[in-house]
Amino acid sequence: MQTLTVALEQRSYPIFIGENLLSQPACFKPYLKAKQILVVTNMTVAPLYLQTVVQLLLGQGYIVQTHILPDGEQFKDIRHIEGIFTQLLEHRFNRDCALVALGGGVVGDMTGFAAACYQRGVDFLQIPTTLLAQVDSSVGGKTGVNHPLGKNMIGAFKQPTAVLADTSVLDTLNDREYAAGLAEVIKYGLIRDLPFLEWLEQNMAGLVARDKRCLAEAIARSCQNKADVVAADELEANDLRALLNLGHTFGHAIETGMGYGEWLHGEAVATGMLMAADLSWRLGWLQAQEVERIKRLLVSANLPVVPPATISPSQFLAYMAVDKKVLAGKLRLVLLERIGHAIVTADFPLALLEQTLAAGTELGR
Amino acid sequence: MQTLTVALEQRSYPIFIGENLLSQPACFKPYLKAKQILVVTNMTVAPLYLQTVVQLLLGQGYIVQTHILPDGEQFKDIRHIEGIFTQLLEHRFNRDCALVALGGGVVGDMTGFAAACYQRGVDFLQIPTTLLAQVDSSVGGKTGVNHPLGKNMIGAFKQPTAVLADTSVLDTLNDREYAAGLAEVIKYGLIRDLPFLEWLEQNMAGLVARDKRCLAEAIARSCQNKADVVAADELEANDLRALLNLGHTFGHAIETGMGYGEWLHGEAVATGMLMAADLSWRLGWLQAQEVERIKRLLVSANLPVVPPATISPSQFLAYMAVDKKVLAGKLRLVLLERIGHAIVTADFPLALLEQTLAAGTELGR
Repeated sequence: MQTLTVALEQRSYPIFIGENLLSQPACFKPYLKAKQILVVTNMTVAPLYLQTVVQLLLGQGYIVQTHILPDGEQFKDIRHIEGIFTQLLEHRFNRDCALVALGGGVVGDMTGFAAACYQRGVDFLQIPTTLLAQVDSSVGGKTGVNHPLGKNMIGAFKQPTAVLADTSVLDTLNDREYAAGLAEVIKYGLIRDLPFLEWLEQNMAGLVARDKRCLAEAIARSCQNKADVVAADELEANDLRALLNLGHTFGHAIETGMGYGEWLHGEAVATGMLMAADLSWRLGWLQAQEVERIKRLLVSANLPVVPPATISPSQFLAYMAVDKKVLAGKLRLVLLERIGHAIVTADFPLALLEQTLAAGTELGR
Repeated sequence: MQTLTVALEQRSYPIFIGENLLSQPACFKPYLKAKQILVVTNMTVAPLYLQTVVQLLLGQGYIVQTHILPDGEQFKDIRHIEGIFTQLLEHRFNRDCALVALGGGVVGDMTGFAAACYQRGVDFLQIPTTLLAQVDSSVGGKTGVNHPLGKNMIGAFKQPTAVLADTSVLDTLNDREYAAGLAEVIKYGLIRDLPFLEWLEQNMAGLVARDKRCLAEAIARSCQNKADVVAADELEANDLRALLNLGHTFGHAIETGMGYGEWLHGEAVATGMLMAADLSWRLGWLQAQEVERIKRLLVSANLPVVPPATISPSQFLAYMAVDKKVLAGKLRLVLLERIGHAIVTADFPLALLEQTLAAGTELGR
């Protein structure tokens, strides 16, 4: 088992990474000082792991309730947060209770937000069950829900007391979900950690085979990178944290253009990262073979690298939430100044971005 | 104009106290760095002061929207918070916007909570328009809403960037609301500030006449007392902040027993404080003439000092949310160890509490 610490002064917390953490009380008992625990999960995860977690907690003397959400981003709203509050109050959970999030990013976001607001804040502990949640949403404290007028518009910064990234639970992920998680892993190498990128190139076969040793290393190095960024910019007060959005502006356009759920978030980010690399190449920052190198790594992780042909360049620009007239002053993108080093910039010619959007299967050529 | 500071490190903020603050840009401009401002108020306050505040903000170059809530505790819920989010999103308010709370405690609680959650936190500034809100809810950062199963169960600790306690706006309060605010003013003297209690005894006639100089002094000394307590215990982690609840456990029983809205909160707290003084006397901590002295001060502020005869002692106990069997181990009350010095204790004989509850008009005799 590996342990790393997200350093946020009094809000610092450990991330435990390894196999079968769910059977090790030392991973959670010191971080769950409450007696009353509500385990929040969803309908997909519940049949797989809920019983295990509940038995483990009961065995340690906790009073345990469970709350099962429907599975999907479309249920990530205030109504379903209210349902959590109702259950907490019906069972007379007091200010000393704690919530445990057992699931992917949506479950973590919702449980963390409920914990932030219940009686003005109770503890919560995270057991992320997807690779994406383990390497991304479990670090950083961003919690919240969607509003009909915008994604993640309502929320709080709320740090967990501990994160249990159990590599065993990843065995039940389907291949697409798993690959989508790898996209964010690759992202850390691209934006700030060239040695990690090289390690990924050497170990991608093992990662794709879900080798536990490779996985633990990839998760630890990803979380460490994110933890470093978050520690330096917890509340997103400067550009540092924005680097984590490499590929996301392009990716969001793909998700929006295709309809949410058609492409997985990680898939759209993978293609978006290649598009960012392509634009960086057009700016003279990357060499063509470096774009090719990034593409090769993404493909080896079973990720898509060609934007959907059904979205025209002008639609793409619109989905990137910009008007051409205000483009120069407004649109800021995360681009690669060199491989392994991203920057946030609004300083690029619109014409080059349009070339990237028109490139289709010819990105980087 | 007086200024005092609530010292909470990076979250420190000033409270300005005086007449006609709403016409002084220096009181708000440095604390509203946003361009987009949403002023949240209610239907009672809007006709009185909304136009003034909006004109003032427009005159300083802000982009201003307004949101008018219905007036009353029964609308203090998540639905109405969602309404605030919807308006913010419809007008494309970004993370750099700010909310201004113009109203009493309910408006402040709701606006602060909305500001805490909108895009994971935006600034807010408070303009409390009741005496109770000026001396109590504007200091301390407790924000939130009710849940059908409990009051103030959903919320956040969120400090404002500044508080404008304008004594001019108190002229429009009715006499009962005004007296209810005085109950919390007297509370600060009783729990931790004997010189202030003596000052109140000497100046109550001026306060009842709403003399502006007296009012400014009373508000400043109340806020300073609360600020000192909050600075020492921001997140209610120890008993210190609990001292602010003198009279509140008795008072809540009166509010619950009579039905919410029948007695004003401050009225119930006033009677509750005299009941706490009576129990303190029965414990040998206060002298009979000190209980009489407290009663005289409350009466001079036009506050009720006799608990409703329609609530029997056993009902009273039940409303105090206790079962007799667990009483000894559970019920903690704020009592007066001596006049001007409160403590939190569970160490009192049930029989003495029952005598207090049975005393009726004979409190302290």
